[in-house]
Amino acid sequence: MSFQLRMNQSAKKTGSNIVLALDLPVDQPNRLLSRSIEILEATHPYICAVKINRQLVLPLGLFNGVQKILSSAQDLGLPTIMDCKINDVGHTNRIIAEYYYKAGFDALTANPFVGWEEGLQPVFEVANKMHRGVILLVYMSHKATNEGYGQKIHDPKTSQLKPQYVAFAEKALTWNADGVIVGATYPEKIREVHEILGDRVPIYSPGIGIQGGKVEPVVKAGARYLVVGRTITLAENPAENAKFIRDIVRRCTKE
Amino acid sequence: MSFQLRMNQSAKKTGSNIVLALDLPVDQPNRLLSRSIEILEATHPYICAVKINRQLVLPLGLFNGVQKILSSAQDLGLPTIMDCKINDVGHTNRIIAEYYYKAGFDALTANPFVGWEEGLQPVFEVANKMHRGVILLVYMSHKATNEGYGQKIHDPKTSQLKPQYVAFAEKALTWNADGVIVGATYPEKIREVHEILGDRVPIYSPGIGIQGGKVEPVVKAGARYLVVGRTITLAENPAENAKFIRDIVRRCTKE
Repeated sequence: MSFQLRMNQSAKKTGSNIVLALDLPVDQPNRLLSRSIEILEATHPYICAVKINRQLVLPLGLFNGVQKILSSAQDLGLPTIMDCKINDVGHTNRIIAEYYYKAGFDALTANPFVGWEEGLQPVFEVANKMHRGVILLVYMSHKATNEGYGQKIHDPKTSQLKPQYVAFAEKALTWNADGVIVGATYPEKIREVHEILGDRVPIYSPGIGIQGGKVEPVVKAGARYLVVGRTITLAENPAENAKFIRDIVRRCTKE
Repeated sequence: MSFQLRMNQSAKKTGSNIVLALDLPVDQPNRLLSRSIEILEATHPYICAVKINRQLVLPLGLFNGVQKILSSAQDLGLPTIMDCKINDVGHTNRIIAEYYYKAGFDALTANPFVGWEEGLQPVFEVANKMHRGVILLVYMSHKATNEGYGQKIHDPKTSQLKPQYVAFAEKALTWNADGVIVGATYPEKIREVHEILGDRVPIYSPGIGIQGGKVEPVVKAGARYLVVGRTITLAENPAENAKFIRDIVRRCTKE
């Protein structure tokens, strides 16, 4: 089953479009591990997938530590995404992808800025072979995102200027990506990218809550999945917050 | 002591400008660890620093595994660089940098494409506080590097077009980077970047040997350090190959 289909089914089953980002602040490895599994078990009725980043991979290690969280997620029927933002040369990218997929991740994120040949091509090759997903960064959620993702580039084919994120969204179509990232703090960019991608490539949107993104404009602009981290993980009652956001998403989607 | 000074002293002491890239192919963790230390001990008279990438961090883990290699490098007096190509949002970048520096790395690589505010600013802050280095990607060694690093961007200040790598080299000056990466497979780009940076920011050049880069044009174009991986690590006699490349660099530098 393709990653896109797995995500679809999980979202249908759970009635949620929330991807939980387990981006926990620095702590002792044993506490990071137990807290991750605790949050996962508490919030799983309200989320459709889990995203992990270097906040866990570096202190816990990919094998052993992170694999225990992946195995919990699998037991709960949740797809897993490694947010590694791959942006190295091809032979290294291939090895990075192989290790993450072998550890059990269903998808990983990659930066289209490195290009195709000897860049992301090997990542897509490994993903296709192992039936996993690749999600491309198209526009990020932080303040300086405009410096790179928002810059205007010269298109040698048309001799016209074009926003970088439009070029990246077009690459997502050409390369057959399984998703794209567009920051929740820039709903107008979500709308523009959604116009390019239609329903072919779903938009994942991080940055809700603490980073400043609001649910309604993001959903209405065309984001399919909301990636929510600290607003859930740092809450006194993560399950309550997860349910609260899930319910807002539901209301926006029904309107 | 600053990272730049540490590199200077190491290069003087060893009479070598070669940074050994321990990018080993996929293998059992225990074999990766012993092979890394073996190569390091054999080649250390001919190298001035060691670079590590996800080829080791993912199978060995940062703490425990990779730290053993760092400790070997420290015993041999060699500075260490983590080639993590940081390109996430600020709060994640900060944590990534803290973990790598805490593990013992003297410097790490980062992608200027994410920009400054809530992008790489926290990385430079952590580096300054811990007296470590940040090396920025300016032009990579693979075929598709032209797609991103070689694209022309619109400069809103001058309304002129400018190559992406020129903008990145300028950021290296503004941000006070401790080094930049320019691929050995593109000596003409090394020359251009060197004209912008002069002696203020040293150029690290990966891609010698298996990737196609040749020593002489790279050194003559202005690269200060050559990052050499598989040409040494996959050789039957790594020390011999390291010495061989070191000697070519010496001859080019003296001419």
